[in-house]
Amino acid sequence: MKAKEKILIAGGDLRQLYCALRLSEKYDTAIAGFDEEFLISEDKFCKVSFDKNQVYDYAVLPVPPLGEEGMLNTPCCSEKINLKLIRDMLKPSGAVFAGKADENLCSELNGLTIYDYMNREELSLLNAIPTAEGAVQLAMEEMPVTLNNLKILIVGCGRIGTALINILKGFGADITVAVRNSQGTAKARIMGIKSCCTKEIEYNFDLVFNTVPSMIFNYELLKQFSQKTLFIDLASKPGGIDFEAASELGIKAIWALGLPGKTAPVTSGEIIADTVNGIIEERGESDA
Amino acid sequence: MKAKEKILIAGGDLRQLYCALRLSEKYDTAIAGFDEEFLISEDKFCKVSFDKNQVYDYAVLPVPPLGEEGMLNTPCCSEKINLKLIRDMLKPSGAVFAGKADENLCSELNGLTIYDYMNREELSLLNAIPTAEGAVQLAMEEMPVTLNNLKILIVGCGRIGTALINILKGFGADITVAVRNSQGTAKARIMGIKSCCTKEIEYNFDLVFNTVPSMIFNYELLKQFSQKTLFIDLASKPGGIDFEAASELGIKAIWALGLPGKTAPVTSGEIIADTVNGIIEERGESDA
Amino acid sequence: MKAKEKILIAGGDLRQLYCALRLSEKYDTAIAGFDEEFLISEDKFCKVSFDKNQVYDYAVLPVPPLGEEGMLNTPCCSEKINLKLIRDMLKPSGAVFAGKADENLCSELNGLTIYDYMNREELSLLNAIPTAEGAVQLAMEEMPVTLNNLKILIVGCGRIGTALINILKGFGADITVAVRNSQGTAKARIMGIKSCCTKEIEYNFDLVFNTVPSMIFNYELLKQFSQKTLFIDLASKPGGIDFEAASELGIKAIWALGLPGKTAPVTSGEIIADTVNGIIEERGESDA
Amino acid sequence: MKAKEKILIAGGDLRQLYCALRLSEKYDTAIAGFDEEFLISEDKFCKVSFDKNQVYDYAVLPVPPLGEEGMLNTPCCSEKINLKLIRDMLKPSGAVFAGKADENLCSELNGLTIYDYMNREELSLLNAIPTAEGAVQLAMEEMPVTLNNLKILIVGCGRIGTALINILKGFGADITVAVRNSQGTAKARIMGIKSCCTKEIEYNFDLVFNTVPSMIFNYELLKQFSQKTLFIDLASKPGGIDFEAASELGIKAIWALGLPGKTAPVTSGEIIADTVNGIIEERGESDA
Repeated sequence: MKAKEKILIAGGDLRQLYCALRLSEKYDTAIAGFDEEFLISEDKFCKVSFDKNQVYDYAVLPVPPLGEEGMLNTPCCSEKINLKLIRDMLKPSGAVFAGKADENLCSELNGLTIYDYMNREELSLLNAIPTAEGAVQLAMEEMPVTLNNLKILIVGCGRIGTALINILKGFGADITVAVRNSQGTAKARIMGIKSCCTKEIEYNFDLVFNTVPSMIFNYELLKQFSQKTLFIDLASKPGGIDFEAASELGIKAIWALGLPGKTAPVTSGEIIADTVNGIIEERGESDA
Repeated sequence: MKAKEKILIAGGDLRQLYCALRLSEKYDTAIAGFDEEFLISEDKFCKVSFDKNQVYDYAVLPVPPLGEEGMLNTPCCSEKINLKLIRDMLKPSGAVFAGKADENLCSELNGLTIYDYMNREELSLLNAIPTAEGAVQLAMEEMPVTLNNLKILIVGCGRIGTALINILKGFGADITVAVRNSQGTAKARIMGIKSCCTKEIEYNFDLVFNTVPSMIFNYELLKQFSQKTLFIDLASKPGGIDFEAASELGIKAIWALGLPGKTAPVTSGEIIADTVNGIIEERGESDA
Repeated sequence: MKAKEKILIAGGDLRQLYCALRLSEKYDTAIAGFDEEFLISEDKFCKVSFDKNQVYDYAVLPVPPLGEEGMLNTPCCSEKINLKLIRDMLKPSGAVFAGKADENLCSELNGLTIYDYMNREELSLLNAIPTAEGAVQLAMEEMPVTLNNLKILIVGCGRIGTALINILKGFGADITVAVRNSQGTAKARIMGIKSCCTKEIEYNFDLVFNTVPSMIFNYELLKQFSQKTLFIDLASKPGGIDFEAASELGIKAIWALGLPGKTAPVTSGEIIADTVNGIIEERGESDA
Repeated sequence: MKAKEKILIAGGDLRQLYCALRLSEKYDTAIAGFDEEFLISEDKFCKVSFDKNQVYDYAVLPVPPLGEEGMLNTPCCSEKINLKLIRDMLKPSGAVFAGKADENLCSELNGLTIYDYMNREELSLLNAIPTAEGAVQLAMEEMPVTLNNLKILIVGCGRIGTALINILKGFGADITVAVRNSQGTAKARIMGIKSCCTKEIEYNFDLVFNTVPSMIFNYELLKQFSQKTLFIDLASKPGGIDFEAASELGIKAIWALGLPGKTAPVTSGEIIADTVNGIIEERGESDA
């Protein structure tokens, strides 16, 4: 039987700890960059603190990997950790996994293969789940009505839009999805959902989720809506809602970024772990 | 054209205001038992304060209808209102709607027909929606993981259990429902959900919703579960969980009563309104 | 360990064979009233032909149990079987299970406990599944369009109506359910489905399923519909559609009775088996 | 107001007639290549037979567009129609829509813009609906059991696999999807469905739908399955099942090609119409 590969999770917040816990089901896993207090809460972490004399096959760094002055990004550690330390513990044939890897990281780790797990399609797909769930939770907390029977507009029918539709159908909401083109219309129809064109949005909705990162809800459009409509923007910058205009019009609009880490840190960490594990398995296959 | 019937909403909290707003779509509606500050927030209420010289067809009282010393239950009013005042404004052929009507109420209103809307099947059915939504919101707030893929046990396949199943299927949860008999098994199968017998509950669940008001999760059963399992009890008294045992075992268990009024007061008020309207329509039909 | 109870499946069509096969997972099962040719197709039946010298705990008879002249109803057997033969093989403490048991059966089996499995709520619930599936299959075969996006009316929100809604939601159909009262409206809302009153049915539907056994679609109502609308009546006698009127108006209307046995005989047999097993278990519990 | 654009539907089977009917809601539509008997069934077609002296903006040809000897593919017409005739009736700025357009077509229509609607993503998406519905209908017709509770394997999680999952979830089937990579696993998880790796398929399924056009079910794999398992292959050539091996093993396997045209010709025609309309609208936008 082959020995387990060795993997070092270095830096980051609680998500990286849950990433480590998940990876430990399959790999010989060690953790660096967390003070004792963060580890003791979960007795499973006690034995996984790292050993500088070990040699690791892989290192998993957080999002973003680097903090100040080229040191590792370690918000849960009172000591600073130099990236060189991590590099020196890796095998030359090893690989580093990081989120939003930039040129600085590449130059610090020169010679090592670097994978940016944030660029992986499966991570984006899986992150759509906690994002959609977090958005639904937010809507429930903000509104004094049930989602059942509520008139909801979802702008965009990509990964997050699709995840939202699946969830909100279960609630018995009255869903319309705004799409840009006939492919979007087709997707909506497969899911049995009403659709409209992004350019011709109606105004009679109680709740609007935007998932498209381009300005759609400008002053002119927003002023057609009731002040009771709640807007939740899930799109990354620049977002799709003019928040100043909304504020001026007395409309509540929330820009909900980074939901996975906030509302489901354990699942977020596991998604990173599953993505890293997928990349490692692909490496193995292409070797074979 | 027939003149609109006159209806007086008297006493109660915000739910009764939303009940009034809904009924005002169809009836000539007036409100009693709310201080000015509660009414001004919604400009629609401005014109509906009541007139002592009017005669009303119906009165809608809150749950419970009576407060101290036989006065109307009016938590949003600085004055006390005597039930006699309400009675005197009603036509002799009129009717009173109240939640949890008791003998005291009947004796105070003698001669008038009284309907207890809390005993109506459609109200119980509709209340299952905000109850289930509130329970799901609570679970999302308490847990650091997604509902997607989570192992969830629902005890009971009645109104609330069914509403929970519909919602949680949309999340892609891994649902099992515990049922008492073969009818329950059949219901679960129609919904495409796994079922088990209430007497043979397995222990490997991350989240448990109880909807059955009889002691199921006693010390012996609870101690089989992981400390990470979250229990949410939705059953009315006596509930189905031994909360002391749970506390002793370090298991988090929440008894979530009265969810509709807490998490969806507007919908709760509308449900009362729809139930009252349904009873009025039935009266009309049996007259015809 | 207790010996397995002995059960004799006597008479009926293929459904009873599949009932026997299912019961044989748990009971010592024998079959009477089937010619060899029906048994050999399934090698599992080879060893289960009955032995007249055995004594059985239970007998399962078909729907209806009796054929001509008080003999057992045995369409798959060239010999006639007298019910007395079955009775004599049963223990005095035993029980007989039959569908649509009548007085004749009772008098023939006097002294033995008789259970009519067709009267059991769980059988009605489970039979709603093959009924709804068979109805959907029929609609697909008859119509040159997809169910996706189709405007469908379901009349009645009981067991079969609910099963239809669950299935047709998956297809992404545009469903409306016609209900009689506010309880029905509430059920529709829980499922996230539009509803209307049975007395105010609109006409713009492509497909109509009726599940209510009382005349709803008379000439006056039918003539409002397009000739392209397909009607499928699932209600037992007297049904809910005036078929003569439909024929006169050139509207296709199909009265689809006995669908479970036709489109899913195996499942139908298993449902009888599960119902019989449920009754036996209940007997055991009430003994204890 | 702008005059309606003129569109000529030329050749093909019933699907093209329904395509014409849909397009006639928006365009001035004419039909060529159908004998009278095909047109009279639908009175709406009476007035749309074409006029050789007209000039058309667009022509819609069938799949494939050409029959023998470079003539138009006209299975519903007793006369042969030369493609030149169609070409001469089109404006020089016009466009031709055809399915599976090849070089012959291009050379015959030289100078005219040709769009192959079969290459459009929205057509593939929409065709997944009648394909999945037709496959489900086929399974229901072939099997003596309900889809409810049935153990079903779907191979592939693309457009058709996703459409199948949506439908079969409504039936309450026990669904597993076989996927190639971690993206597929993620898609399955979003839909709340079990997944396995295409390379590690289990054998305990009652029904298998294949949607992947590469040999997966070879002799070695097929022989692990029960003879009662039904295989339905929806993949285009070369398909994914070794049909000879299946036959030898006594396993029923059906290669179901061209389902949309067979089970839902009206919807198929409408999908072509919607795709053509989408392309025309895009042309208009890029002009503007």
